[in-house]
Amino acid sequence: MSQEMFQKERTLKMRERLIGQSCRLFFPQDPVKIVRARGQYLYDENGTQYLDCISNVHHVGHCHPLVTQAASAQMELLNANARFLHDNIVHYAERLAATLPKKLCIFYFVNSGSEANDLALRLARQYTRNEDVIVLDHAYHGHLTSLIDISPYKFRKLEGQKEWVHVAPLPDTYRGLYRRDHPNPGQAYADTVKDLIDEAQRKGRKISSFFVESLPSVGGQVILPSGYFPKVAEYVRAAGGVFVADEVQTGFGRVGSHFWAFQLQGEDFCPDIVTMGKPMGNGHPLSCVVTTEEIAGAFTANGVEYFNTFGGNPVSCAIGLAVLDVMEKEDLRGNAVRVGNHLKELLKQLQAKHPIIGDVRGVGLFVGMLSQHICLSTDGPWNSVIKFKPPMCFSLEDAERVSAEISHKKRNGIQQRFVKVITVLLYFYRI
Amino acid sequence: MSQEMFQKERTLKMRERLIGQSCRLFFPQDPVKIVRARGQYLYDENGTQYLDCISNVHHVGHCHPLVTQAASAQMELLNANARFLHDNIVHYAERLAATLPKKLCIFYFVNSGSEANDLALRLARQYTRNEDVIVLDHAYHGHLTSLIDISPYKFRKLEGQKEWVHVAPLPDTYRGLYRRDHPNPGQAYADTVKDLIDEAQRKGRKISSFFVESLPSVGGQVILPSGYFPKVAEYVRAAGGVFVADEVQTGFGRVGSHFWAFQLQGEDFCPDIVTMGKPMGNGHPLSCVVTTEEIAGAFTANGVEYFNTFGGNPVSCAIGLAVLDVMEKEDLRGNAVRVGNHLKELLKQLQAKHPIIGDVRGVGLFVGMLSQHICLSTDGPWNSVIKFKPPMCFSLEDAERVSAEISHKKRNGIQQRFVKVITVLLYFYRI
Repeated sequence: MSQEMFQKERTLKMRERLIGQSCRLFFPQDPVKIVRARGQYLYDENGTQYLDCISNVHHVGHCHPLVTQAASAQMELLNANARFLHDNIVHYAERLAATLPKKLCIFYFVNSGSEANDLALRLARQYTRNEDVIVLDHAYHGHLTSLIDISPYKFRKLEGQKEWVHVAPLPDTYRGLYRRDHPNPGQAYADTVKDLIDEAQRKGRKISSFFVESLPSVGGQVILPSGYFPKVAEYVRAAGGVFVADEVQTGFGRVGSHFWAFQLQGEDFCPDIVTMGKPMGNGHPLSCVVTTEEIAGAFTANGVEYFNTFGGNPVSCAIGLAVLDVMEKEDLRGNAVRVGNHLKELLKQLQAKHPIIGDVRGVGLFVGMLSQHICLSTDGPWNSVIKFKPPMCFSLEDAERVSAEISHKKRNGIQQRFVKVITVLLYFYRI
Repeated sequence: MSQEMFQKERTLKMRERLIGQSCRLFFPQDPVKIVRARGQYLYDENGTQYLDCISNVHHVGHCHPLVTQAASAQMELLNANARFLHDNIVHYAERLAATLPKKLCIFYFVNSGSEANDLALRLARQYTRNEDVIVLDHAYHGHLTSLIDISPYKFRKLEGQKEWVHVAPLPDTYRGLYRRDHPNPGQAYADTVKDLIDEAQRKGRKISSFFVESLPSVGGQVILPSGYFPKVAEYVRAAGGVFVADEVQTGFGRVGSHFWAFQLQGEDFCPDIVTMGKPMGNGHPLSCVVTTEEIAGAFTANGVEYFNTFGGNPVSCAIGLAVLDVMEKEDLRGNAVRVGNHLKELLKQLQAKHPIIGDVRGVGLFVGMLSQHICLSTDGPWNSVIKFKPPMCFSLEDAERVSAEISHKKRNGIQQRFVKVITVLLYFYRI
């Protein structure tokens, strides 16, 4: 396969003509054409290398040879649908089960985080027989009709809030209602959910689920206060609902110390449903919902088949298995801890010099960084948060380079208009 | 990759323990474990060969080497998301555009037919600013919350019909309201849609779209009467709605004479939105929505990004391109015409001998056929329709074999309890 078929200008014109403009490009003023990638590096059509701090999907590194080999070998052999009995799907489910609390043991394989979250919504509603959903402010759970309804980040810009959706405050102890000086922000934020439940029940509404990212990402890479999830789960279950942890962005060891980000809320805490996606297939469309026997049982009991044409096919599962193998073989969770700690240390040094950096966390220089061949993106309610979520093979040297570039940009006062406020979550390690 | 990791009994036990039981197996009394496939043949763990009349997804044949090679080559090079500029997505869109009426020129790439239909719903609603949807009785458009709502085949067994959904009679001239003796069944069935629109409007409701499979499949592999689509489109557009053709099962040359099944309704007929999926990636999760500039423009104008993590990535598009190449290189549309005509002829000979066969179309011996190592499935409102939708490389000899087996089963009177009624659509050719 040649690396380039059309000249960049022509690609751009074809893209403008043929692809829906709602599908936006990175760096729209000067889009980058990437033709090759390996590990944490991207290469454009001229061979220029970019350090990739964006691609959390390419979890074990772009184009990892073991993943490619596993995919090719299985593609040569069989890729039938999951209505035929096959070893890969059950082997993969068993490997995933080993990373999860025992209670979470029934798997549904699908193609995207959005499909997973929609299925989670169906499971919660079927099990509880309730309709309403509580979500966090600024949350984003996917692009489907049902998920826009539970994503304040989207529905505020579109058709507005449905009567069955209830929005709880984002438990952000840096900018939110209760901050780090509060004696127990976890309890205080959990109580805001309790208040919402009470209010909904007074109106005769019934809660099916509390839907939450284990680390709210579009909400600003927020690390939740200790004790929040267990307390919320208690309130939600008492109201007849279930707790859904959306691990689409946060799962698969990105937090280093644990395989799942919800585990940061305590070894004893267990959601009722967990959804997973992005990093799962290292770029291949592969996602999953896991739940308890009781919830799966209620879904089976409705007597209606759930068939997902591509979900859990042998190739997708072979890829998923290879990703797990590489993570173990290359100790990528250990790397996340080591490199994350180092990067945090470097950014803390920058923070000491620059008052505009609030909390380690940030400085918005999306475009500025691009010009130094480092791809970073911003997010959060004020677009003030640098999302730092590179492939997991990111190295100590890469961390030094990013820190040095941020420092350099700061010294030169360039891109000040992008410097808003500041909470970079160094998303890939335990804070 | 070894072909078998666990013994069949263990695989089955793990499947029962780990995978949601709503995800059903083919032939649940005696599930088949398939470990290898090539072309139109499946092989179980003992090397037994099965003729595959089920896998419409594996369009150019299971594990086609050119598709595998294209996937592997691109996986080695790059699989970044579609926010980066890349040639494959625009090249693929251009190749697809060449198969479609000129008006259908803006593409959105997604991962599954369900994602495509959900996006079509969003596009239709954004463009028309209306909410209501008209669908055909017994229709199935996908497993997502929004699509169960527009799928009578599912919602009748689940939460029931929403007030914004209107169900038109299935235009089945073999079993429906108007039959082949009617002077103009296309017009008569279109008038039932007009009546629905009038009734909805009297209640103050506004139509966003008419959603229809170009050949209703779950509805019983129905071939629509001539003139039906153009007339319905006229009525729907006059009511402010758009016409959505769901080609997820029917597209990509399966009908032989045309690339898209909606083209059977006349060269001049053009839907406003077309969704595609299953055969598109030969098993790889790849789907698409195509629409007009006006509809895409309205979606862009809402100012909200549409981002699909895996949709339109370079590997998916490389696979899509390879599928198109194989179809041309091996003249699979020509094969569909030739083999389809032959099979139709053979089954017509059977029909002449067996009054239980209504219209060429069918005889329900799902399990019986399996015992002869031929995989067939049944569908339709009475489960009386054999779905005949093999990979497109199905040969004249395969057709003879299927016909002979059906004949043999009939002679022996075996499996009479599966013989209900009869409308096999020989789905892959122009009737």
